[in-house]
Amino acid sequence: MPTRIGSYTTIMDKSPSLVSYATAVSKKEAEGPLGKYFDIINNDALFGQKSWELGEAEMQRLAVQKALDKGGFTPADLQYVFAGDLLNQIIASHYGLRELGVPFIGLYGACSTMSESLILAAMMVEGDFAGNTLAVTSSHFCSAERQFRFPLEYGGQRPPTAQWTATAAGAVVVGKASAPPYVRAVSVGSIDQKDVRDVNNMGAAMAPAAATTLRRYFEDTLTGPGDYDLILTGDLGHVGAELFRELMKRDGYELTKAHGDCGLLLYDRETQDVDAGGSGCGCSAAVLCGFVLPAMRKGKLNDVLFMATGALMSTVSVQQGQNIPGVAHLLHLSHRPA
Amino acid sequence: MPTRIGSYTTIMDKSPSLVSYATAVSKKEAEGPLGKYFDIINNDALFGQKSWELGEAEMQRLAVQKALDKGGFTPADLQYVFAGDLLNQIIASHYGLRELGVPFIGLYGACSTMSESLILAAMMVEGDFAGNTLAVTSSHFCSAERQFRFPLEYGGQRPPTAQWTATAAGAVVVGKASAPPYVRAVSVGSIDQKDVRDVNNMGAAMAPAAATTLRRYFEDTLTGPGDYDLILTGDLGHVGAELFRELMKRDGYELTKAHGDCGLLLYDRETQDVDAGGSGCGCSAAVLCGFVLPAMRKGKLNDVLFMATGALMSTVSVQQGQNIPGVAHLLHLSHRPA
Repeated sequence: MPTRIGSYTTIMDKSPSLVSYATAVSKKEAEGPLGKYFDIINNDALFGQKSWELGEAEMQRLAVQKALDKGGFTPADLQYVFAGDLLNQIIASHYGLRELGVPFIGLYGACSTMSESLILAAMMVEGDFAGNTLAVTSSHFCSAERQFRFPLEYGGQRPPTAQWTATAAGAVVVGKASAPPYVRAVSVGSIDQKDVRDVNNMGAAMAPAAATTLRRYFEDTLTGPGDYDLILTGDLGHVGAELFRELMKRDGYELTKAHGDCGLLLYDRETQDVDAGGSGCGCSAAVLCGFVLPAMRKGKLNDVLFMATGALMSTVSVQQGQNIPGVAHLLHLSHRPA
Repeated sequence: MPTRIGSYTTIMDKSPSLVSYATAVSKKEAEGPLGKYFDIINNDALFGQKSWELGEAEMQRLAVQKALDKGGFTPADLQYVFAGDLLNQIIASHYGLRELGVPFIGLYGACSTMSESLILAAMMVEGDFAGNTLAVTSSHFCSAERQFRFPLEYGGQRPPTAQWTATAAGAVVVGKASAPPYVRAVSVGSIDQKDVRDVNNMGAAMAPAAATTLRRYFEDTLTGPGDYDLILTGDLGHVGAELFRELMKRDGYELTKAHGDCGLLLYDRETQDVDAGGSGCGCSAAVLCGFVLPAMRKGKLNDVLFMATGALMSTVSVQQGQNIPGVAHLLHLSHRPA
């Protein structure tokens, strides 16, 4: 049975396991520092399809299939799938998973979707609604660029605060407590907003939400940065990550050592021309599912706070002069169950 | 504790209550057969804002505020809000609720969002994750037309199978069992697809999903149409509703008497020029929150199956020649707790 502590945090007394997980990425992600950790790599980013949108859908399908295969599961073993992506009407999820046949909950949390889906998937197991559930998300550089910014053919220039949308998908099967990593606690963020209106600086728009969620979690649990091997945000990028640490410092939390950002881990900023770093739902999904969860299973990381962040604007809201609200959802993952 | 029965259905043993609920609509909805049941009516559809998108956001905010007020709640009483709408990146929810300060789960389920959000909100209470939660959704004729079809100024013609997106929002506070209506069971749908590709006939695209979800629920619970006062789909419209009843009939279920469709209840098709009927997340939300839930509280309706349906395409997926997948999520609402 879950236990609520403080105002925002739920302790998962049954500690659901992240049973199996997989990733699918494209060329640039495979060439990055974490390249060797990914399961499926497709170099042309089309994943054998005729459009980037269908390519993203196929990438998501492949990540799900691989996560199922690695755990010895079939779709019939899953009671719910929680999925979302950046595309209008989350078509990567709808078309990628249209043949799965599993009860489907569609989400939109922008780049926070890996946290959002994983929290709900874990709650279903913790609350005895399901034996096994699946959380999945993706993003795709080419489909995102033409939807949110310009068609690639236009050759638009990017300012240095811009982030590079990862072409990546990550999927996790959540089940009853059996093996590490375990979900020990979750904290769902509320919408947070400062007056950031620059769509080329989304890290700055999301950093306050990340700081709010983390501060609430520390207050609820009476813990601090020293209690965790890694506090992983995603995807603040270079500008947002600095701002986030600065905001935490003002509240008395020194994060420098323990903090990592998925947007800074996925690519090598020196050599890969990604400006302020990676972004997109798939960025944190790939870093989590490819690198962090396997390290936790092996005991190389014991306690991790995973906190994907989302910028909740649309092209229309920005054109209408609105600010960019942010959100961040947190999971405490551990090598040990409760 | 929830009890899973059959393959798709969960019995809510604690029977969470739909504690309070409210609606906000515009002129056309107020002129329809259910006009007198709505809480807030804004005749120009802008709700005092400068754009239709911000008007929709404000409409959603007003519905939430009214639902809170009617139950004597403040946002601090809510542990989670589940929200979504039809707009790209669900900006009506993000901007409408950006100042609420409640942990926020963004959903995309197209016109199924009222069911989807209500199921998750009820599960949080049933599973002891929350004392009170909120489910809300909206749609807006003007913002939807220009996003999915043409700007209103273009004056595009509509075929008779087309449905009219309702300008409406509905919000429900879910809490522990206290008063009717109670949530007795839920059944989350999987993505269902036949080969429908006509975006002007979405009722036909969604009808198979509705039939699949209802058939599964009947099989899981060993019940049939005669066990319910009302089986309420939303929003299949005239064409989809007929197809849905035909599909159910083929499987041996005669629905004629008990079946109602939100798309056919919200407007008067004879006089209101809505072609095949209403649609949009707000259509089923307004019919449920304005008409059905109050009638259940008074005991005029005892057992209702509420099943909002969604068409999961985007303009891009349709332009790329893809079919229109559908989904339908079901709740059994009752005047009596378990």
